[in-house]
Amino acid sequence: MDKITHQDLQVTTLGECTLPSPFINFEKIEISPTNFVDETLRVPINILTGGKHEEPRLSFECAGIRDKIFFDPKKVRAMIVTCGGLCPGLNDVIRGLVMELHYWYGVPEVLGARYGYAGLTENTEFPPMKLTPENVSDIHTLGGTILGSSRGYPGTEEIVDNLERLGVNVLFCIGGDGTLRGAHDVSELILERGLKISVVGIPKTIDNDVPFVYRSFGFETSVEAARHVLDGAHVESKGALNGIGLVRLMGRDAGFITCNATLSSGDVNYCLIPEVPFQLHGENGLLNNLRKRLKNRKHAVIAVAEGAGQHLIGDAANKDASGNKQYKDIGDFLKAEIKAAFKEWDEPVSIKYFDPSYSIRSVPANADDSIFCHNLAGFAVNAAMAGKTDLLIGYWHGEFTHVPLGAAKKSKKRVNPLQQLWRQVMRITGQPCQLWNNGSANSANKNSEA
Amino acid sequence: MDKITHQDLQVTTLGECTLPSPFINFEKIEISPTNFVDETLRVPINILTGGKHEEPRLSFECAGIRDKIFFDPKKVRAMIVTCGGLCPGLNDVIRGLVMELHYWYGVPEVLGARYGYAGLTENTEFPPMKLTPENVSDIHTLGGTILGSSRGYPGTEEIVDNLERLGVNVLFCIGGDGTLRGAHDVSELILERGLKISVVGIPKTIDNDVPFVYRSFGFETSVEAARHVLDGAHVESKGALNGIGLVRLMGRDAGFITCNATLSSGDVNYCLIPEVPFQLHGENGLLNNLRKRLKNRKHAVIAVAEGAGQHLIGDAANKDASGNKQYKDIGDFLKAEIKAAFKEWDEPVSIKYFDPSYSIRSVPANADDSIFCHNLAGFAVNAAMAGKTDLLIGYWHGEFTHVPLGAAKKSKKRVNPLQQLWRQVMRITGQPCQLWNNGSANSANKNSEA
Amino acid sequence: MDKITHQDLQVTTLGECTLPSPFINFEKIEISPTNFVDETLRVPINILTGGKHEEPRLSFECAGIRDKIFFDPKKVRAMIVTCGGLCPGLNDVIRGLVMELHYWYGVPEVLGARYGYAGLTENTEFPPMKLTPENVSDIHTLGGTILGSSRGYPGTEEIVDNLERLGVNVLFCIGGDGTLRGAHDVSELILERGLKISVVGIPKTIDNDVPFVYRSFGFETSVEAARHVLDGAHVESKGALNGIGLVRLMGRDAGFITCNATLSSGDVNYCLIPEVPFQLHGENGLLNNLRKRLKNRKHAVIAVAEGAGQHLIGDAANKDASGNKQYKDIGDFLKAEIKAAFKEWDEPVSIKYFDPSYSIRSVPANADDSIFCHNLAGFAVNAAMAGKTDLLIGYWHGEFTHVPLGAAKKSKKRVNPLQQLWRQVMRITGQPCQLWNNGSANSANKNSEA
Amino acid sequence: MDKITHQDLQVTTLGECTLPSPFINFEKIEISPTNFVDETLRVPINILTGGKHEEPRLSFECAGIRDKIFFDPKKVRAMIVTCGGLCPGLNDVIRGLVMELHYWYGVPEVLGARYGYAGLTENTEFPPMKLTPENVSDIHTLGGTILGSSRGYPGTEEIVDNLERLGVNVLFCIGGDGTLRGAHDVSELILERGLKISVVGIPKTIDNDVPFVYRSFGFETSVEAARHVLDGAHVESKGALNGIGLVRLMGRDAGFITCNATLSSGDVNYCLIPEVPFQLHGENGLLNNLRKRLKNRKHAVIAVAEGAGQHLIGDAANKDASGNKQYKDIGDFLKAEIKAAFKEWDEPVSIKYFDPSYSIRSVPANADDSIFCHNLAGFAVNAAMAGKTDLLIGYWHGEFTHVPLGAAKKSKKRVNPLQQLWRQVMRITGQPCQLWNNGSANSANKNSEA
Repeated sequence: MDKITHQDLQVTTLGECTLPSPFINFEKIEISPTNFVDETLRVPINILTGGKHEEPRLSFECAGIRDKIFFDPKKVRAMIVTCGGLCPGLNDVIRGLVMELHYWYGVPEVLGARYGYAGLTENTEFPPMKLTPENVSDIHTLGGTILGSSRGYPGTEEIVDNLERLGVNVLFCIGGDGTLRGAHDVSELILERGLKISVVGIPKTIDNDVPFVYRSFGFETSVEAARHVLDGAHVESKGALNGIGLVRLMGRDAGFITCNATLSSGDVNYCLIPEVPFQLHGENGLLNNLRKRLKNRKHAVIAVAEGAGQHLIGDAANKDASGNKQYKDIGDFLKAEIKAAFKEWDEPVSIKYFDPSYSIRSVPANADDSIFCHNLAGFAVNAAMAGKTDLLIGYWHGEFTHVPLGAAKKSKKRVNPLQQLWRQVMRITGQPCQLWNNGSANSANKNSEA
Repeated sequence: MDKITHQDLQVTTLGECTLPSPFINFEKIEISPTNFVDETLRVPINILTGGKHEEPRLSFECAGIRDKIFFDPKKVRAMIVTCGGLCPGLNDVIRGLVMELHYWYGVPEVLGARYGYAGLTENTEFPPMKLTPENVSDIHTLGGTILGSSRGYPGTEEIVDNLERLGVNVLFCIGGDGTLRGAHDVSELILERGLKISVVGIPKTIDNDVPFVYRSFGFETSVEAARHVLDGAHVESKGALNGIGLVRLMGRDAGFITCNATLSSGDVNYCLIPEVPFQLHGENGLLNNLRKRLKNRKHAVIAVAEGAGQHLIGDAANKDASGNKQYKDIGDFLKAEIKAAFKEWDEPVSIKYFDPSYSIRSVPANADDSIFCHNLAGFAVNAAMAGKTDLLIGYWHGEFTHVPLGAAKKSKKRVNPLQQLWRQVMRITGQPCQLWNNGSANSANKNSEA
Repeated sequence: MDKITHQDLQVTTLGECTLPSPFINFEKIEISPTNFVDETLRVPINILTGGKHEEPRLSFECAGIRDKIFFDPKKVRAMIVTCGGLCPGLNDVIRGLVMELHYWYGVPEVLGARYGYAGLTENTEFPPMKLTPENVSDIHTLGGTILGSSRGYPGTEEIVDNLERLGVNVLFCIGGDGTLRGAHDVSELILERGLKISVVGIPKTIDNDVPFVYRSFGFETSVEAARHVLDGAHVESKGALNGIGLVRLMGRDAGFITCNATLSSGDVNYCLIPEVPFQLHGENGLLNNLRKRLKNRKHAVIAVAEGAGQHLIGDAANKDASGNKQYKDIGDFLKAEIKAAFKEWDEPVSIKYFDPSYSIRSVPANADDSIFCHNLAGFAVNAAMAGKTDLLIGYWHGEFTHVPLGAAKKSKKRVNPLQQLWRQVMRITGQPCQLWNNGSANSANKNSEA
Repeated sequence: MDKITHQDLQVTTLGECTLPSPFINFEKIEISPTNFVDETLRVPINILTGGKHEEPRLSFECAGIRDKIFFDPKKVRAMIVTCGGLCPGLNDVIRGLVMELHYWYGVPEVLGARYGYAGLTENTEFPPMKLTPENVSDIHTLGGTILGSSRGYPGTEEIVDNLERLGVNVLFCIGGDGTLRGAHDVSELILERGLKISVVGIPKTIDNDVPFVYRSFGFETSVEAARHVLDGAHVESKGALNGIGLVRLMGRDAGFITCNATLSSGDVNYCLIPEVPFQLHGENGLLNNLRKRLKNRKHAVIAVAEGAGQHLIGDAANKDASGNKQYKDIGDFLKAEIKAAFKEWDEPVSIKYFDPSYSIRSVPANADDSIFCHNLAGFAVNAAMAGKTDLLIGYWHGEFTHVPLGAAKKSKKRVNPLQQLWRQVMRITGQPCQLWNNGSANSANKNSEA
């Protein structure tokens, strides 16, 4: 095998490019210089830095097995807690943690807190479950979490007191934004008190919106499940005159699941997400657009993220137990608005509304997510045993990383309307650019998308 | 949102690590310094080089839309050819190419060659199919390729002559190693003749063994399908006294699909791949090991890649129409050897043999592979329209890239027994290190794995 | 092979039965003499009557190919119409009709009316589709109906006028109660006018409530789909403290789908159907019962048919376009009542509500339903070609039959709380007998159940 | 609701039928008078006889709960044994038996024999498993049998001795032909010895060939799984020039699974079953026919039952442990014959061979089979508790029955080439009548088909 050289990696071209890109759908997407790829941009074969070479770029520590560890495995009492809504793969992660702790490091005792952070408080009526290779060996075939979950956070002092009382020295927190913020507070108090308890987060977000995590576990499985629902919506929309299949999908602040399900389906005509506010009324609004489409095609499929279009509904002041904003139901809202509009136009319309949230959240992980969960679990154990704390296991450019919980708090992951994902959604749906509010692209979060 | 700094990305530790890693399964894997992660290794947040900064590292050109293009879309006649064995997602790629060419660039004519390279010859009895958005709109719900495929390569001169005759100026070749070698030869002859025909490869390999391609399309779908077969093998193995579920999976030279299916299943006890030769006979051989396991557990599941253990069967001189070595059937061989051994020991054994190859190859792509195929197709069209040629669309560290076909020819992608994937397989199966031939790890191909 | 005799079919017993059945769950079901099987009851090997023997029992004509036919196939113009809500298998029936008419009888022209009975009116903007073996060959892989459907009935005169105008002499009506009533009216007017147009109904009811039809097409597929939803509800219920998975299933007047999904799941704790009114409040009511269960088991799954518990909600006067009563949403009602009750008790509860109706209706038929649809279609064509009219194809004791539409109108199919299906539901859920209103069993419809 | 009368059930006709059935495919099926349905044949609404009326027709005793029972439940020790090859639903039946015995009758002890009849012998190294509602509650989600199975029969004396020793008074035997013959012998010896042990069989046959059992459990699930394999074969056949998808399915002596999978798929071109011998060579043979089809259509799908075409291969003298004939592999044979023929004709052919046997046998039961298994189990328990013995639970015209094991031994269930199932297979495949040997229909078993 010859050695690859820089020369080998130069791409051949037929000649100089002189024609401006004549995209026939030009009017659909605001084409700006940032949409094009600079010819000089390159992806390194080896992206890792450090080691022998010293390089100062912003980077994450690599996850992986260390040759020296901090904890004596024989003295480790590990605890696992699962928080927030269900997500495919929770049981795979639990199983992976137990297997890795037991078989690889020989940790004698692993506990599972019941029903989220509530199970980490002293006065819980549910004592922790003992987790062993035997009792977790088949749990990956089930959806959900055998530990139970909950929203809400009982308070940092109470949790740390209880960890001390229980003699836990390694804590794995599986959850989303709120959970990881809690884990950060717990870590900080532990360090303040000078305790030797390692806290490692494993990001769980069905919305795929944890920063510095290219892909969160369960996301692919959820997209697959969402695609099936979109298939059904397509069937229902074609089964009636002026049929509309309206599907509300997960995505409070980030439209990743809605965008990906849209791409995988190929049958969605309108994809509405929180990051790109759309117009409902008016010449270029959704309603008018839908009317035109039904005139031509007699059916339409709309995929809408739960957090989309909140600007149209009015202020939502409520918060749930985890402190998340309670969103108004955009699905019900759209259903009512569409019905009203077609009634006014005196044109028939048949709306079939799908709200599959829990049906998606409760499926078992697919093969790829199972493997991914197993990897996350393995790396989390490696980090914890090496005495690292206050971090989450990230996944970045195909590598597993250590992301400080404090850094994660500083950022958000959103769909960037200027980048590849949204561009493809525009193309595959054929939804018009004018639907989106002027300037939406400019106000969009510039953070790197998945 | 605060700006992330280098400081933010430093991981907190509880203290200095002093204990050597006391892996209880130490004897199972040869632990060498290379198994551990150097503390200074880091993953950059932004891996792309070039642009404003000039950096000399070995790198690939980024795929993506260019602001200037080489071909006038109105004058483009594109052709698509699918070669080799079936793989989930072929129809998704065809559909994506047609949609991108038609809707995005306005290319008026897309042709599909019938039955692989054979359809690119002049005297084929099967003229190319016209491909339109209408006739490809639903093909992604079907497995296989609507164009048909074949192995074999009719000769470079003949193909280029015919492309000229047909007036094709953009050719998309979807296929594996042999196909891409052919595409490279075709590209070179085209350039020699001074023709303006762009040749872009889209790597199709159910074995996931194309170099510089972290993941090939259809791979995840195939792992999912293979997992279901392993589930069945597990059920059958437990359904009989000393039951053995023996599953032969794809993987002529690379064990990726067998390793990943093993990880996702969790029920495999022996995972045998081409990269790591195993012992059959003797104290530490597979047969003896299996005997011990059946004594304790009464059942076992074996996943074996088709190219594994060829050293045990003897020379295989035959080649198929694409020039690939024809392997002896390791599944039949193992079945016979196991039966013979247990007969000699006078112990009962009940072997259920699964050979699911075509059942896996023929399924439609899952949601994630559908999206991936769509991306590959889009980037392939962008590259071709920009007049780039003699390249394949790669996927590296989460980025789509341009890989010169000549560079791809210089390398191979194999499972590296010293890295993460194989280490996890060892752990999840619990298969003993001694099963593998002495020194196997040292002789293993060191090329980066997926 | 010896001939089977009466003697051969006598069952051996160990001795006389003397103990009364000591059912430990005696209190759960009202055991009355009618619950037990009379020892002398028998199932004939050959149930068909007629032919050589003359027997006077109430019976249906057998469906099947006749040796003489009424219509000259060359002169037949057949029309197919699909009405009402979607149901798995509609496309299979359409395909079967077209294939049978074309390949078996050589009928030259088959038309498909668009969007239900609306497509049978003269002024429809949607002319009938031509249906050929080519354009229906793959439609069974899709859910829904390629013809579209609708509720509503434009009027008998208008339909018959239009059939005359179009020259249709064979009409296949695929639909439920309302559709078949319409077909009956159309048949009668046709006979009144002395026209030679055969009208054959194929019962389509996802609720499986058409009388004299043991099983309607799509029913098994729907139960399978509903089971998956119940699986998800079980996962969600266990994933939260005092979690309740509440699933609303199809079943306006008949609880077959809810009962069968309950039986197939095994995880449902309360199965609520229209035929058996239940108590909500009070000592023995659902709410109190649920409270006790959550105290012991911390989770519960409720499957409720859409028509269940309407007596609790108040009068529902609205009717939809097909004349069906519009039911109040028992799912929303129960969700609110449960929340209120637990709030009053100051006990936590976490309700996850599933409303999968359209997701179930839109799936393609499973293998067994595909075959069943094919059979129904074949028998419908045989009946029509033999000049039979004003009938539907029934399925009774494993035989396909001709049921006059007028007879079907006279009866209803409901779950009989005194028979096997409900008894099994009681047993598998363990729901207490006291939950049901006193006397419910006595007032229940005595019509034979599925 | 009006009372239905004889008059209500008379079908309306448009007039007298005068045209002979002009089947366009007349040459494909031998049409004889027996193929047509006699106009006077009727299906009774109520088929049950006995009770008040005395009728002398050949009939089965109805299954169901009796008001008096033979065994005192408190003193019952029940045992379950599963024998022969795996079949979807085994665990559902086990679960149903345990639940019914425990919850309904209050039987304190249920045992499961390990690995088939071998587990009923005294010197087995595997003592019976205790089966409780807790340890069987989730087993229906798994394929296979938690008890293990085996072929072979250790001898009647040994089994009865051991049942006595263990104090078993109720034995449930789940298995096929051989198993039920064994159960019959066991029952007879028990009666000879004057023991009070009830023996009830539950027919398990993936081939659906147990007489007086319209449908055996797992059959529908298997057809569904087989359909998926045929889908793959169709994809593979179209993916290559002159591609042939050759699928070997279960069916040693009966072609039910092959016929039903063929009907549900719609893509099979040749369906070959044991009951209808076919010609391989010659003008009308399969090979020549295949050649013509490939010339026109370029691909073909063949579904062949494992017992088909044995007359072409030569005598097969071997028997397996259960005494079943060991068949030669018709799949390998056909593959070789087809390859040889096309080589001689010098025409290309690409055969993809599928042998999915174990992949089908090992899947969990679908929803409908789950319910069916639950019913079978419930009725088996009712029969046993009433002291009935030497019987199997049958399913006939939609009713569950008691079939004496001795009667079952006297008959066989086969596909009847003169009846509906085979006629539909001929029609849906379009395979020519001439393919079948002359006289095959006449020599066919006339026993009623499923």
